[in-house]
Amino acid sequence: MGTLLIRNAWLDGRTTDVLISDGRFRSLTAPSGTQADKVVEAAGMALLPPFYNTHTHAAMSLLRGYADDMPLQKWLLEYVWPYENKMTRQDIREGTRMALREMIRTGTVFFSDMYFDIEETIDVVREYGLRAAIGVTFVNSHSKSQQAEKLDMLRSWNDPTGGRICLTVAPHAIYTVGPELLVQCAETARSRNLKLHIHLSETRGEVEDCIREHGLTPVRYLDRLGVLGDNVIAAHVVHVDREEADILAERGVTISHCPCSNMKLASGIFPYKMLHEAGCRLTLGTDGDSSNNNLDMREEMKFAALLAKVGSGDPEQLPAGEVFDMATRAGAEAFGIDAGVIAEGKRADALLVDLHNEKMQPCHNLLSNWVYAADSSAVDTVICDGRVLMEHHEIAI
Amino acid sequence: MGTLLIRNAWLDGRTTDVLISDGRFRSLTAPSGTQADKVVEAAGMALLPPFYNTHTHAAMSLLRGYADDMPLQKWLLEYVWPYENKMTRQDIREGTRMALREMIRTGTVFFSDMYFDIEETIDVVREYGLRAAIGVTFVNSHSKSQQAEKLDMLRSWNDPTGGRICLTVAPHAIYTVGPELLVQCAETARSRNLKLHIHLSETRGEVEDCIREHGLTPVRYLDRLGVLGDNVIAAHVVHVDREEADILAERGVTISHCPCSNMKLASGIFPYKMLHEAGCRLTLGTDGDSSNNNLDMREEMKFAALLAKVGSGDPEQLPAGEVFDMATRAGAEAFGIDAGVIAEGKRADALLVDLHNEKMQPCHNLLSNWVYAADSSAVDTVICDGRVLMEHHEIAI
Repeated sequence: MGTLLIRNAWLDGRTTDVLISDGRFRSLTAPSGTQADKVVEAAGMALLPPFYNTHTHAAMSLLRGYADDMPLQKWLLEYVWPYENKMTRQDIREGTRMALREMIRTGTVFFSDMYFDIEETIDVVREYGLRAAIGVTFVNSHSKSQQAEKLDMLRSWNDPTGGRICLTVAPHAIYTVGPELLVQCAETARSRNLKLHIHLSETRGEVEDCIREHGLTPVRYLDRLGVLGDNVIAAHVVHVDREEADILAERGVTISHCPCSNMKLASGIFPYKMLHEAGCRLTLGTDGDSSNNNLDMREEMKFAALLAKVGSGDPEQLPAGEVFDMATRAGAEAFGIDAGVIAEGKRADALLVDLHNEKMQPCHNLLSNWVYAADSSAVDTVICDGRVLMEHHEIAI
Repeated sequence: MGTLLIRNAWLDGRTTDVLISDGRFRSLTAPSGTQADKVVEAAGMALLPPFYNTHTHAAMSLLRGYADDMPLQKWLLEYVWPYENKMTRQDIREGTRMALREMIRTGTVFFSDMYFDIEETIDVVREYGLRAAIGVTFVNSHSKSQQAEKLDMLRSWNDPTGGRICLTVAPHAIYTVGPELLVQCAETARSRNLKLHIHLSETRGEVEDCIREHGLTPVRYLDRLGVLGDNVIAAHVVHVDREEADILAERGVTISHCPCSNMKLASGIFPYKMLHEAGCRLTLGTDGDSSNNNLDMREEMKFAALLAKVGSGDPEQLPAGEVFDMATRAGAEAFGIDAGVIAEGKRADALLVDLHNEKMQPCHNLLSNWVYAADSSAVDTVICDGRVLMEHHEIAI
């Protein structure tokens, strides 16, 4: 891997040249005349960390707009599942490709995925040069031999990219995975030092069913099983009480907040203020294209911030800088990626954002414009691990 | 004004050529070989109606990102008003110019404005070729002679564009305009056949103050004064009860729903379901760049639809087609503009939307993609009154 020079970028209130080598930021103040194998001109553009999307289903981009504006059960039973039953491995490859192009276009370099036929997803991630944590999904309905095969894969798998892709253990949810399999997943994750990715407390129905079946709410139920720990990524977490928030904080669970999906499916209003006050680790996810209907983390930041304000009745909740941190640094940190901030020594993930874009002007406050005003038309260039994935609006492959 | 041919556009499920002359759609199925003074190539693009933004403050684009994440009173008293006190007419001209470029970029051809020094706004609207309903603002703090001057302007003004600009009578709100002046505004509007544009029931504080001062809620108070009628555009309307919804419906008042502003300032959740069931006339507005923080009606559609769903707990509320209708046809109709749909004989306002854009694929449902998935990067071309304001991403001036 060669060297990359970002010339004349706007960073921390000044114009500077940034040198990247071996996939890391070497200097944020490279002397003029610095040579590099590749140079990207960045005059009039801000250098910002890119997005880390902690919950999605990439290949479901194929279902974007296929079924909207209906209750979750009807959506799943009558539309999503019948469609998915007809999907081939080639479809999954194409769907993932579409998703990755959309992610790059909108400034995302990492996603935590949960789907099936993951060999296809892995191939496409390699091809496009992003980072990913790819879930090996477990559900009760799989046969014992299928489950054994999955556990085998988790034990024997090696990252072909040397650091950009990891697998996660992904029991789908408490209502699709029984207690025995949940415990087995948790033990596998712990022993293999892997993340565990699960849907949790997404709907009121899930909570009611769990109380009926197990006599406990979902968070308490998982905690009793010993599943919760600092390697757990819990998606949604809409319906929890304050004591559950404290449990999640104490166990170090990472929450993936998906505001658009929760709003579109009318799942409920994420209790941001309560979870924040409890000290929970908060990150941001888009969920799939089928329930959002895009993978645009910039838009997701705005939804998260505005929902936190109107949901609490307090406009000071989740200010621009905090939601930006959730979508960038916190997402990377949750998956142990040494990136998410622009700093010397960190892995070189970055965006160039066009400051001349109509929505980025005037620039009283760069982060406010980025969170509340911009859209993907301002994303000029995307860099992941020191490699340029999109340059001046052109995706590299 | 010459003829304009849109070639190979996607419209109602087929590819067609569209001929525009004298500012109107002449033929949606022009024969091949049709000649025109100007041709726009539209292969791979959908022809859609553009947006009609029924509540904004254009020149406040200057304050985008100047103050966020704080309570309304602090925002107004410590930031917005001191800033505005220093604004010159030239500033207002520049701010309006920035706003209009942003509107064109994001597919809006009409806005209903409320601000001061409106001669500047009118000039810039003429320059850029949009449509506008420009509010002549009334507040108690103006002197009698200032108010007389404004009333004079309303009586003597002639539209220099021959149909694209009108003035509206704009008493700012019930808490800044006394009952006598409100009645005078209503009478002027009625006698001159003008719209009346007012902020209404935006915050809980406004309702409480009104009850304390007048013994009535804001809608009932305005109704008792005889202000409400089918020429009234009421912005926000967040805090109303069912009886007030019925009053608004019966009087034919147009509501401008501004979801981003209401959420960002934590004003409250717009009661979409109740107002819709009462039969109210609903349209969409962005409010100003200072409280949104953009003028992007596409994003506003998504916020409106998702807020209606989560606010009511019902995912079937405000489906894509309905919110699209609010943002297009209904907005035009509220201001008596013979446009907002693509139909022969209608004024020729339209967008070309790029179907190859990553967020517009796959195309199971065009309107769903446009409402829930897209962003301004898919807006290729903008046409207003038969004139091309932006062609293939290039703004004409």
